[in-house]
Amino acid sequence: MDFNLNLGSFTTDHRTVPLETERIYDVIITGGGPAAMTAAVYCMRKGVSTGFVTREIGGQVSETSGIENYLGYKYIEGRELVNRFSEQVKQFEIGFREGAGVLKIETGDVKKVAIDSGETFLAKTVIISTGNRWRKLGVPGEDRLVGKGVAYCAICDAPFFAGKRVAVVGGGNSGLEAAIDLAKVAEHVTLVQFLEHLTADGILIDKIEKYGNVDILLEHEVKEVKGDEGVTAVTVAERKTGKARDLDVQGVFVEIGLIPNSEMVKGVVDLNERGEIVVDCACRTSAPGIFAAGDVTSVPYKQIIIAAGEGAKAALSACEYILMGK
Amino acid sequence: MDFNLNLGSFTTDHRTVPLETERIYDVIITGGGPAAMTAAVYCMRKGVSTGFVTREIGGQVSETSGIENYLGYKYIEGRELVNRFSEQVKQFEIGFREGAGVLKIETGDVKKVAIDSGETFLAKTVIISTGNRWRKLGVPGEDRLVGKGVAYCAICDAPFFAGKRVAVVGGGNSGLEAAIDLAKVAEHVTLVQFLEHLTADGILIDKIEKYGNVDILLEHEVKEVKGDEGVTAVTVAERKTGKARDLDVQGVFVEIGLIPNSEMVKGVVDLNERGEIVVDCACRTSAPGIFAAGDVTSVPYKQIIIAAGEGAKAALSACEYILMGK
Repeated sequence: MDFNLNLGSFTTDHRTVPLETERIYDVIITGGGPAAMTAAVYCMRKGVSTGFVTREIGGQVSETSGIENYLGYKYIEGRELVNRFSEQVKQFEIGFREGAGVLKIETGDVKKVAIDSGETFLAKTVIISTGNRWRKLGVPGEDRLVGKGVAYCAICDAPFFAGKRVAVVGGGNSGLEAAIDLAKVAEHVTLVQFLEHLTADGILIDKIEKYGNVDILLEHEVKEVKGDEGVTAVTVAERKTGKARDLDVQGVFVEIGLIPNSEMVKGVVDLNERGEIVVDCACRTSAPGIFAAGDVTSVPYKQIIIAAGEGAKAALSACEYILMGK
Repeated sequence: MDFNLNLGSFTTDHRTVPLETERIYDVIITGGGPAAMTAAVYCMRKGVSTGFVTREIGGQVSETSGIENYLGYKYIEGRELVNRFSEQVKQFEIGFREGAGVLKIETGDVKKVAIDSGETFLAKTVIISTGNRWRKLGVPGEDRLVGKGVAYCAICDAPFFAGKRVAVVGGGNSGLEAAIDLAKVAEHVTLVQFLEHLTADGILIDKIEKYGNVDILLEHEVKEVKGDEGVTAVTVAERKTGKARDLDVQGVFVEIGLIPNSEMVKGVVDLNERGEIVVDCACRTSAPGIFAAGDVTSVPYKQIIIAAGEGAKAALSACEYILMGK
């Protein structure tokens, strides 16, 4: 076990260098989650010149509490896993740019990656692993009350609802995970599910049934979030009858899925009906030299271990593309 | 960092139960590597009844020395990573059978998994993640001298060649990794590569050039392994001229690739020209309800992190198949 003592986030051998605008990199990786970081490690180990552009390191994993299904760790906090990934990336002399959103990627022999500062970076290949973001309910009151009771990230915001009554919208894994997190601190949790059954893992359903302060409403939809300075109620309706009523809650967590961050390649590579970048089994997109990996792609199931594996594939495919001199 | 102290291989909460012959499992997973173990964790967390059949836990990962490209660990020994995966699997009440080779898998509404003991196990779905095995040179002397100087696993056998002269056949990552391991202990290493360049990662090529006791022979092939009680020489020939000569070595490590362990589904699911099980991006094979993941499949690049990601995908696809009641 001793070697673990050397693996923490306190390691100081960071060797990253600033990303340069004039240089043509072999690969530029966009995104900061597990797919992007795995791709970075694989590219650097292959010895190709690599740039890395991200708004922030970690992405949604940072906001995940206990992770029990990343193999190698029975249990690890999201933030800690991100630190470990990040340390692996930063041991290399990778061209690094944090705090930058990618606005547009242009294809061609040399690809162009334009970011929101106005700068453009150049590369022979690009790996897009920009992940996805929370889907909104789209009901009255939601936008107005964000941060005043409307929340999307239970791990970030659950502590603010200690002793309060909350609703969680969504019966998938993220909904159940949020409800479990909240059940531990809130006075009461109402889980609102659109479908007639929960779609989460059995293990999560078993867990939630152990909490006495959780009610589950199946086949209900949210119609409105009410409140002025803060949420005071959520209006839900029975889907079969349309019968509506107000839930007396001070918070609502929206856990109904994710939207892929693929806007920067709209019209450049093929997207599917959900807006995900279509990739083949080697992470190739429809544009030669542009690869994609992780939650932003058409690969089914959004999981950390899957994103990491896809990042490795995308990197090796990009390296093969460069080697072939295409 | 404290929580790491609970993660070691000394954990004793093993909850596996024996695999039963009369029962129809939701899923039976075959194989014992990263893909199989990740699939097992995902299936158990989904709450489906799961069986696990393998000859041994760990497979080739156990025989890998330092691993630096499994994200989450800057460096970990293969054996230690296997222990961590294995602990994650064994915390569940999974139907477990070790020491069993799978002879034949039959498709149908209920799939049959026949093992070499004569027993047959039943399941609604099967996940095949049986990996691959070392490819042999197929030259005179090789089979006769296995274990007497002919070796396939440097991490297992390198220590036996301390102070001796050895050849390593193969210029890919596994060849270079073996040569580096051997350079540390052997008197001299000759790396024999069939192609006109090394195909390994740049980082490995840089590393090997730092060793003064390694020679690299490009465009050479091995013709024979000589010796009676042990290897005394390896005959190599220049590919362009055919000119042959003997290398004065006491050992030869064969690192020329892998053969997929797919024999048990020949004629049952589609295989490609390399004998790999053809899968789509959701790990589905050509037979409904039979899924495959990891090194045994057509997915490019054989890497631990990729196999793990594919195992998760196969598990989630199998669970979806079961849920749909097919």
